[in-house]
Amino acid sequence: MYQPNILLETLNIKLPIIQAPMAGGPTTPELIASVSNSGGLGSLGAAYLQPEDLRQNIQTIKQLTDKPFAVNLFVPEFHQTNNAAQQKMCGILNKVATELEIVVNPIEPPYRPDFAEQFEVIIAEQVPIFSCIFGIPEKKYLQKLKASHSKIIGTATCYQDAKALQQAGVDAIVAQGLEAGGHRGTFANDPDIHAIGTMALTMQLVDLIDVPIIAAGGISDARAVKSVIDLGAQAAQVGTAFLTTPESGAAPIYKKMLLNTKHNNTQLTKAFSGRFARAIKNKYVVEMQPYENDILPFPIQNKLSKQIRTQASKLENPDFMSLWAGQNAYLCKDISAKKLMQELVSLL
Amino acid sequence: MYQPNILLETLNIKLPIIQAPMAGGPTTPELIASVSNSGGLGSLGAAYLQPEDLRQNIQTIKQLTDKPFAVNLFVPEFHQTNNAAQQKMCGILNKVATELEIVVNPIEPPYRPDFAEQFEVIIAEQVPIFSCIFGIPEKKYLQKLKASHSKIIGTATCYQDAKALQQAGVDAIVAQGLEAGGHRGTFANDPDIHAIGTMALTMQLVDLIDVPIIAAGGISDARAVKSVIDLGAQAAQVGTAFLTTPESGAAPIYKKMLLNTKHNNTQLTKAFSGRFARAIKNKYVVEMQPYENDILPFPIQNKLSKQIRTQASKLENPDFMSLWAGQNAYLCKDISAKKLMQELVSLL
Repeated sequence: MYQPNILLETLNIKLPIIQAPMAGGPTTPELIASVSNSGGLGSLGAAYLQPEDLRQNIQTIKQLTDKPFAVNLFVPEFHQTNNAAQQKMCGILNKVATELEIVVNPIEPPYRPDFAEQFEVIIAEQVPIFSCIFGIPEKKYLQKLKASHSKIIGTATCYQDAKALQQAGVDAIVAQGLEAGGHRGTFANDPDIHAIGTMALTMQLVDLIDVPIIAAGGISDARAVKSVIDLGAQAAQVGTAFLTTPESGAAPIYKKMLLNTKHNNTQLTKAFSGRFARAIKNKYVVEMQPYENDILPFPIQNKLSKQIRTQASKLENPDFMSLWAGQNAYLCKDISAKKLMQELVSLL
Repeated sequence: MYQPNILLETLNIKLPIIQAPMAGGPTTPELIASVSNSGGLGSLGAAYLQPEDLRQNIQTIKQLTDKPFAVNLFVPEFHQTNNAAQQKMCGILNKVATELEIVVNPIEPPYRPDFAEQFEVIIAEQVPIFSCIFGIPEKKYLQKLKASHSKIIGTATCYQDAKALQQAGVDAIVAQGLEAGGHRGTFANDPDIHAIGTMALTMQLVDLIDVPIIAAGGISDARAVKSVIDLGAQAAQVGTAFLTTPESGAAPIYKKMLLNTKHNNTQLTKAFSGRFARAIKNKYVVEMQPYENDILPFPIQNKLSKQIRTQASKLENPDFMSLWAGQNAYLCKDISAKKLMQELVSLL
């Protein structure tokens, strides 16, 4: 059986499995509670939730489990755009997605829910664990978390990210390898030409950083969990494999695409949100490739292109949905979150 | 102790460690013999050797060991260039490398040693194991290898590469993850936006390909070796960690750069050879970035830019050398190849 470690003590969980916070719907209270009730750490991907929705989600989670859980937010960055750039991107999107028969229109701020308001809910609800990506929250936020005894998990894609997080005083760091599905958390280093694989990143952060390391990226079965624990990670963060559980809120067509995956068919793309993220290479990803230089910054591209994804979801058309997936999505199975938890730790 | 497997039987070696074939000088007969005498498989990176040099290397290896060893060649691709493109690249190189005080001039074919002639030496010398990268040799070559009872190891960076190699009848496949130093072997799939991490690639090829898999990429210590064996690889291929052994032919300044590495400081670049390869991000790599679209195809860029590297080596100036390195080069140590072999298998 798995040996307890500092991270498990800090987070007050029994098994070294963290269900990744996947924003945009998959991380339902049922999924989170099932993972936490199984001894792992369920995480709410709350980045796109308005404060009131966030509060309701947290309260539902609390009704379903008395175990610790995490809530994840995107650390805000300042970005702007101009009318000409937006008009140009609207033209591109309308050309690429003609078959959806909608007209993509320019958008107005706010481009994302207000971070300060989201954060107040997290403090008010005394969320046990706060996790974040895309950077480090300002000091005032970290101080509030510490004052309310919430633990803090940051996300790093390289040594530079991790060092900055360590200096800010986080309790644990997710080593997000290149294999990971969804958004890459890079903030302190150059762009993704420097992307580091899960194995190498885990080893480096375990060796060089004085904070417990959680390995992430392509960890979809018991072999991979054992492998990163052997490398020195204190836990594994698993995302994609949870998407196809019945508890996940991923759309049925998205689940089907994942379950039909035969081998890696993903790539990194900025076309959905303006930030690099790993998704199944569908028609949208391919057709947006020529327009790489016209992509608006995150989160503006995200809100603009959401018009396409909303329509694609309505039509159940996976060609234009953001099918976030890691490089080992071929291991996805249609089994309960509880069963998946049992399988993931079966070689420890 | 490590359990024998099909691959070790096929290659007739005792330990699941293959010293990677690193072309251009590091793989001296002394290094190869030391690895093979220690129970692993030493490999000669012979791609840039003229047939007569190749023969002499092989004969020296045979004097130093009676154990199996491998010789690796680059599978040839057809490429051409024109005077204007060459002149433009000469101008770029002369601008970037002004401080070396040489003039880079256009070059004439042949751009690489003749593959057929290199291959004839391998057959004549009855090399026990032939390994290759960048594709699959024509059928006539594979038939000659089989007739002379040489085993064949191919290199894959994705499922598509591996499937093609399996169909061609190779005896084993190196799963070359993104973390690996030096040239990426990609041939059957799109470019490197699709790069797969060592962990995910190893798992996929182990699961989906019916040929023994050798994991490669970032495997620089015993933890990593154990980890890929646990994932199902039948052996690990280790490159960078052997570069800093006294037996390696890497230049002293190159060894020093590796030994001073604190964490991943590499990136993929086409600037040296025309093909993506992972190297320490030195001045040349950085300054060539803006000229990505002017890079000539492999091996033309390689021969042209070699004028710079030759001069840089003469001046012991690492800013303009090709400092191939994997993402875990920070683990490099100045220890003998024999000692490194012992360390690599110490957790099996």
